[in-house]
Amino acid sequence: MLSKQDNEFLTRSGPGTPMGDLLRRFWMPALLSEELPERDGPPKKIKILGEDLLAFRDSNGRVGIVEPHCPHRGANLYFGRNEECGLRCAFHGWKFDVDGNCVDLPTSPPESTYKDTIKLLAYPTREWGDMIWVYMGPHEKMPELPQLEMGLVPSSQRYVSKKWQDCNWVQSLEGGIDTAHFSFLHAVLTKDEKEALAIYSRSAALGDQSKPDDRVRWIRNDPRPKFSIVAHDAGLVIGGARKTDGPELYWRIAQFLMPNHAFAPAAMPGEVYYGQAWVPVSDTDCWIYTYSWRPDRAFTNAERAQFDGGFGVHSHVDDDYVPLRNLKNEYLIDRKAQKHQSFTGITGVSEQDSAIQDSQGPIQDRTREHLGPTDLGIVEFRKLVIGAARALAQGSEPRSAQAANRYAVRSGAWVADPHKDLAAVMTERFGHRHGYVGAEYGLGE
Amino acid sequence: MLSKQDNEFLTRSGPGTPMGDLLRRFWMPALLSEELPERDGPPKKIKILGEDLLAFRDSNGRVGIVEPHCPHRGANLYFGRNEECGLRCAFHGWKFDVDGNCVDLPTSPPESTYKDTIKLLAYPTREWGDMIWVYMGPHEKMPELPQLEMGLVPSSQRYVSKKWQDCNWVQSLEGGIDTAHFSFLHAVLTKDEKEALAIYSRSAALGDQSKPDDRVRWIRNDPRPKFSIVAHDAGLVIGGARKTDGPELYWRIAQFLMPNHAFAPAAMPGEVYYGQAWVPVSDTDCWIYTYSWRPDRAFTNAERAQFDGGFGVHSHVDDDYVPLRNLKNEYLIDRKAQKHQSFTGITGVSEQDSAIQDSQGPIQDRTREHLGPTDLGIVEFRKLVIGAARALAQGSEPRSAQAANRYAVRSGAWVADPHKDLAAVMTERFGHRHGYVGAEYGLGE
Amino acid sequence: MLSKQDNEFLTRSGPGTPMGDLLRRFWMPALLSEELPERDGPPKKIKILGEDLLAFRDSNGRVGIVEPHCPHRGANLYFGRNEECGLRCAFHGWKFDVDGNCVDLPTSPPESTYKDTIKLLAYPTREWGDMIWVYMGPHEKMPELPQLEMGLVPSSQRYVSKKWQDCNWVQSLEGGIDTAHFSFLHAVLTKDEKEALAIYSRSAALGDQSKPDDRVRWIRNDPRPKFSIVAHDAGLVIGGARKTDGPELYWRIAQFLMPNHAFAPAAMPGEVYYGQAWVPVSDTDCWIYTYSWRPDRAFTNAERAQFDGGFGVHSHVDDDYVPLRNLKNEYLIDRKAQKHQSFTGITGVSEQDSAIQDSQGPIQDRTREHLGPTDLGIVEFRKLVIGAARALAQGSEPRSAQAANRYAVRSGAWVADPHKDLAAVMTERFGHRHGYVGAEYGLGE
Repeated sequence: MLSKQDNEFLTRSGPGTPMGDLLRRFWMPALLSEELPERDGPPKKIKILGEDLLAFRDSNGRVGIVEPHCPHRGANLYFGRNEECGLRCAFHGWKFDVDGNCVDLPTSPPESTYKDTIKLLAYPTREWGDMIWVYMGPHEKMPELPQLEMGLVPSSQRYVSKKWQDCNWVQSLEGGIDTAHFSFLHAVLTKDEKEALAIYSRSAALGDQSKPDDRVRWIRNDPRPKFSIVAHDAGLVIGGARKTDGPELYWRIAQFLMPNHAFAPAAMPGEVYYGQAWVPVSDTDCWIYTYSWRPDRAFTNAERAQFDGGFGVHSHVDDDYVPLRNLKNEYLIDRKAQKHQSFTGITGVSEQDSAIQDSQGPIQDRTREHLGPTDLGIVEFRKLVIGAARALAQGSEPRSAQAANRYAVRSGAWVADPHKDLAAVMTERFGHRHGYVGAEYGLGE
Repeated sequence: MLSKQDNEFLTRSGPGTPMGDLLRRFWMPALLSEELPERDGPPKKIKILGEDLLAFRDSNGRVGIVEPHCPHRGANLYFGRNEECGLRCAFHGWKFDVDGNCVDLPTSPPESTYKDTIKLLAYPTREWGDMIWVYMGPHEKMPELPQLEMGLVPSSQRYVSKKWQDCNWVQSLEGGIDTAHFSFLHAVLTKDEKEALAIYSRSAALGDQSKPDDRVRWIRNDPRPKFSIVAHDAGLVIGGARKTDGPELYWRIAQFLMPNHAFAPAAMPGEVYYGQAWVPVSDTDCWIYTYSWRPDRAFTNAERAQFDGGFGVHSHVDDDYVPLRNLKNEYLIDRKAQKHQSFTGITGVSEQDSAIQDSQGPIQDRTREHLGPTDLGIVEFRKLVIGAARALAQGSEPRSAQAANRYAVRSGAWVADPHKDLAAVMTERFGHRHGYVGAEYGLGE
Repeated sequence: MLSKQDNEFLTRSGPGTPMGDLLRRFWMPALLSEELPERDGPPKKIKILGEDLLAFRDSNGRVGIVEPHCPHRGANLYFGRNEECGLRCAFHGWKFDVDGNCVDLPTSPPESTYKDTIKLLAYPTREWGDMIWVYMGPHEKMPELPQLEMGLVPSSQRYVSKKWQDCNWVQSLEGGIDTAHFSFLHAVLTKDEKEALAIYSRSAALGDQSKPDDRVRWIRNDPRPKFSIVAHDAGLVIGGARKTDGPELYWRIAQFLMPNHAFAPAAMPGEVYYGQAWVPVSDTDCWIYTYSWRPDRAFTNAERAQFDGGFGVHSHVDDDYVPLRNLKNEYLIDRKAQKHQSFTGITGVSEQDSAIQDSQGPIQDRTREHLGPTDLGIVEFRKLVIGAARALAQGSEPRSAQAANRYAVRSGAWVADPHKDLAAVMTERFGHRHGYVGAEYGLGE
């Protein structure tokens, strides 16, 4: 449970808010690369952390993310011309490059130096991992890009998507690191193994669903995983251990990476890894960037087609990246199916998550919560980000922003001896207590 | 005319408002029974007095009306499962019964008593007269259900409907107890008796329209009925007397019943009785529950079909109970018909009322009114409810809430000797100066 | 650049605002005459300067513009009956004439004088130049109608239209008196004279486009016209001089007329004159009334048909006067056409103006502007209206309101000796330094 003040502190990310300042110390996904396909193509309106911005790709392929209004008379550069390495205002022809420099000011004589005094606000951008990233913080504090493994593997081994979410980013991320709800929200009801498996397959609740799977039963039968946490420079390892048929424990282990990434807990060795990044649009909606990767091999076209149609935590979206099953149509909930087949009657793990997260309200009221032992991950996540935002407000920079290489981690599942603790299980599963794999990519031990 | 403060006092009914507190001392229609047809069916979102709530019918047919958000993490129970006498949250499986008790809390061990400390806000409900009623006030002040005659007669002698209204409930109710407007708003223009009758028939402005009717002429010819009021424990008898062709007076007598019921004035002996209850959704819209009954016999299927299509003060509504002729489509006003046939060019007494009431604004500005003698009923209604709300704010409970049996009254029309006062006319018409018929139902003299 | 306070002062025109008070000292176009075609026809809802009003044409053809709510119970007279020289409320039959007098009050006895005490707020109206004008200021300050030449010529020589604009009226008017943007916003890209001419023709950027035209080249080649201003009793003459092929200057001269009219600068002798009036609806939208006239001859049906389809500063609008190319559909911008044909990819000078003006925001933020020498007209306009509003707030009435005849001016283009100043050029072009033509209409020298 949080006080009203702490809930506001945690969830507000507009300019000048403490949490907004913290988020602005990190690179954020701003667009998928595919959203700006064309050099000198039309500029695109975007909104991040409450700021209206314009994105455009110039003649050299560089991407600019700038304030939308021309400094001259405030006309919106969205109607401007993207031409010869700059965006030219349609009103009086003032022209700006991707760095916000005024490169032509035709209402003044050519010899005038007035244009050197005119700047358009422009944020640094990077293109990496099939996404366009933006840094909206103070220039002198700009960190390196977080070295997520999805960006280190060849693009053939990566699949990236995005989806719209109609609620505050924090409660949605909290759903992402909450692995306890799996026994309910994503559960199937039929006691028939085969039908259960079929339903799980469709929603990709687990990795490979080609064959019957004990995990279905273990997850259903233990609604109270025991949680433990291991902290590291880039975030938190969050492990939940469930009973199996024998003495061993079935561990499902997620990662939270500062300030807005989470990795899914399902992957057994040889299965697909999933991660997500939550980027606030306003305080009541956000974009979720979802990335899948496999370190071992390229994705097949069949697998990519499956992702395109909504699979795992990838949602089935329209051309504007809005899920086909969404708040407005109540996620096409099927109340009959809810009676007999799946716990929600909603198709798709991603859509089940969206529904329950949106349903907490535009901004969840955390003053009325009742958290328990299975919510340990949420509690630790809040401590970490609220602590970091408070510290930043008092002048100490977030350490994680300077630990870009420590983002090269994995998360996933394992069946382990009941006497092993989380760190030991991680070491057994990944060869490192934090799931760190940066060494394989030359990022150091 | 009211001061700005008094207008606010009269029209605001959200939690913590004085008028809201008064309304919360009475049972309110929350739903038609037909809106929750199925045991263990999907929960339904409702909003009453500015409060968002969920209604569901459990395995035993009992109806729960509860706050929508699960106490655990605030997920909306609307997406939950209505199963085995309780609503189970789709997020982590917490389960609550119609009384708000937590009957299962799977994230804690079975032996844990934590769930006994968890409560979901639940309001008492009743099902009576084909409606589901809710009481949203302090438990120790809970009154009996108002003993309206429509609920005392066999269901075969009752017809109940509801309609959406796009304005504050008070001005709409004031239209309901204002019987003076009948000479205009519902008037027909043609001087031809037969055509007039046909139009009245369609709109059921009067009871039985099988034969020509002097009342059409009397109403048209006297736009200034003389009003008198008789107060009783449950509300007000509001009589308006018009000239006839002879010395007698044509009385049309309405009832206002605390805090939000009104009975129509048209019924002559042997005709249908109509009542309505106004239930605020927010301060700028409300549900109007309309009930017709006859003490003498069952309604025929033909009569029910007529009501279904909009008749009398029953509106023609869609599956969501929104009138087909409404604010958005300007009530399908026909300006040609307005020139030659009916005063408004709008079809239907109920729709004519809706149009004029909505047109007063989302919340009528009563600081610019000019009330006259024909508005006596409105003036007395305001005195009564404002007085009761003020008294309650000072700690004295509304007497009417404790006089449930005094709601067993009738209202209607009569032609009487001009020397008789309202009380005498009521006695002549109904055998009781207040139109009380509770004795017939064993509710005492 | 303006301070936040000055920007608010300049752009707010609701009741009680200083700029609103200034605007209320002048006659405003309220409707096109064609919008109230019928005597005793349906009343029409309008909104001007933030005030909701009703307009109706009575049995004698007189137009009333009145407050919408009946003084009795606040019902909206929009649903009333327009009959026998008055608007009758549908609720209880109170009736008002175009001057707001209560001419029938049937809920009081005929002999009662109560109705003489009841008034409906009614603003004076005039019908002139195919428009209905309203005066919303203090009665004793009511001026004469501004003697615009479009209203002095026979109606056969006049064409009037209106269009909806989705932004504050001031920035839209500032676009109207800004003749510098012509080198960009309305520019064509193709270097081919013929194709350029064709595109200009479609958008009527200039007067007569039957033959190749040096002006296309002059405008394209000089993006920095030299501006000068001459003030007169009714407003400002705003001249912008561009280079030609020789020593002469190509002058494009606009007029601003207090408080909300502007004349276009394009007309050479024998071409069409254009003027516009901006009338605020709220502070974030307005109606633009556009009038074309020729002093020399009647418009042909072909020319009127051309205007109907959107030509010059006349927009192509739907039956509600909303442009077919508007904010919601992004003005049907064609990004391909923007690459190779026209500077914006938007068809129509009027639509190009709308797009760029809307894009400045609902109310332009002038605190971040950077004005230069080509914005001189905008600067002088602001000084004039802000000064007049400040003076009025201190009790001195606007002189221009009392100079109705000085509105009989023209504006247009001329090619002149480079040594001539604006006053001299105006005299050479129009025979008067202010472009005054009132003498031809008997309005005095």
